[in-house]
Amino acid sequence: MSAGRLAVVGLGPGDPELVTIKAARLIAAADVVAFPHAEGGEAFARKIAAPYVRPGQRELAFALPMRPDPAEARAAYRAAAAAIAAELRRGRTVALLCEGDPLFYGSSARLLEFLDEFRQVEVVPGIASPHAAAARLGHAIARRDEVFKVLPATLAPNRLEAELRAADAAAILKLGRRFDAVRALCDRLGFTARAVLVEHATLPAERTVPLAAAEPGAKPYFSLILIPRADEASEGRMIADVARERAAIPAKARAEDAA
Amino acid sequence: MSAGRLAVVGLGPGDPELVTIKAARLIAAADVVAFPHAEGGEAFARKIAAPYVRPGQRELAFALPMRPDPAEARAAYRAAAAAIAAELRRGRTVALLCEGDPLFYGSSARLLEFLDEFRQVEVVPGIASPHAAAARLGHAIARRDEVFKVLPATLAPNRLEAELRAADAAAILKLGRRFDAVRALCDRLGFTARAVLVEHATLPAERTVPLAAAEPGAKPYFSLILIPRADEASEGRMIADVARERAAIPAKARAEDAA
Repeated sequence: MSAGRLAVVGLGPGDPELVTIKAARLIAAADVVAFPHAEGGEAFARKIAAPYVRPGQRELAFALPMRPDPAEARAAYRAAAAAIAAELRRGRTVALLCEGDPLFYGSSARLLEFLDEFRQVEVVPGIASPHAAAARLGHAIARRDEVFKVLPATLAPNRLEAELRAADAAAILKLGRRFDAVRALCDRLGFTARAVLVEHATLPAERTVPLAAAEPGAKPYFSLILIPRADEASEGRMIADVARERAAIPAKARAEDAA
Repeated sequence: MSAGRLAVVGLGPGDPELVTIKAARLIAAADVVAFPHAEGGEAFARKIAAPYVRPGQRELAFALPMRPDPAEARAAYRAAAAAIAAELRRGRTVALLCEGDPLFYGSSARLLEFLDEFRQVEVVPGIASPHAAAARLGHAIARRDEVFKVLPATLAPNRLEAELRAADAAAILKLGRRFDAVRALCDRLGFTARAVLVEHATLPAERTVPLAAAEPGAKPYFSLILIPRADEASEGRMIADVARERAAIPAKARAEDAA
């Protein structure tokens, strides 16, 4: 029996409607849907894909450590890959569910290293979080000959500062406990007035706050600071307006809107 | 009568299956689908959206100059916005079709400036070209604390060099006639071995070529150079392998694959 096909399926930022037609089709057509779950946490990718998983479809959940020591992480990836490989060797097609875009700061790319022997791998791109955040704000990320940078907050502070200083537009990811330091850096470089903190973009828990109005303290994993291009004045107004309008909508209405 | 709603709908890189469920729904539900066509050229966004446009649905095509003088461009945007505004004032819902992600180096963001009076605007993000290209190569764009940059080839040469030198990963857009200069820069900075030229990602005309093997000369508008993260050796192999395999597939088979 020949090996089955593996589809690595990007699911976008969280709203199940931001899944692509192709991803929905490959999920429904797969013999097995495989997905990571954080230790003791929920399976976020499985939740986004819920409308497209068939009742009774074979499911393969695997654990990935969130803050791994390297040896532990390697063992977890190896075990997950072995479970997927076993399904493929039985000739089954497997859809590996990934939030966001699988190849953009995702863990599935690492998993693929351990599945090297399978040549029939198809990757379906998904909408990455900076694009989802920009859409919620109604604001252009970048235009023409502007430079857009994706900067993890976990960068060495000197490098983060040097890169941000020279950016026309940026998304700062992985805020967590680094938020206050990043906020101070944005203040110092003059980016705060046009920056927006976006938490859980496109999900019922979504929150958009002008950076100038954000409370200090650690931020959730699914949050980012978007620094869109410098604006004509009218666009500067647009950001603040949209953020204020959204902040004024009760959480329940937002949940219904997203449902 | 109250004004209709405007949806700015991202359609992704070109494969109609990479349209999101939400985009497909909003297109089908709209009273009017509006889209740009290049002067004397085709309407690329309309082509991607073709499966989701209803027979007999009202269509509004507008011209946008490709290489505008500023006054001419302004007049074209103003005229397009006026035509859309007229539909909205009649209480009609309008889906404005945009290739890629509407707010990522797109022209629709500019159009929105002229539609400022309409507050009920929803933007649906789409898959941007660097993500589509990475998926076709099966290669991670960036991971962990790496910096990913989007660099238009139209940047001043000094700035392009400085930004690229300090990047862990990059997508270089808008190649056109700048391709040879960008290629020479990649050679000089040592990026050529891991860079791939991707033309028309996800379309029947798709072509992926290791940069080292790319022929000189101007490149199409829908092309980019992807410089993925530096690799473990096994991944470096993957890029070249995939590119070679794809190059070996006859164009006809690729067209059928994409159909």
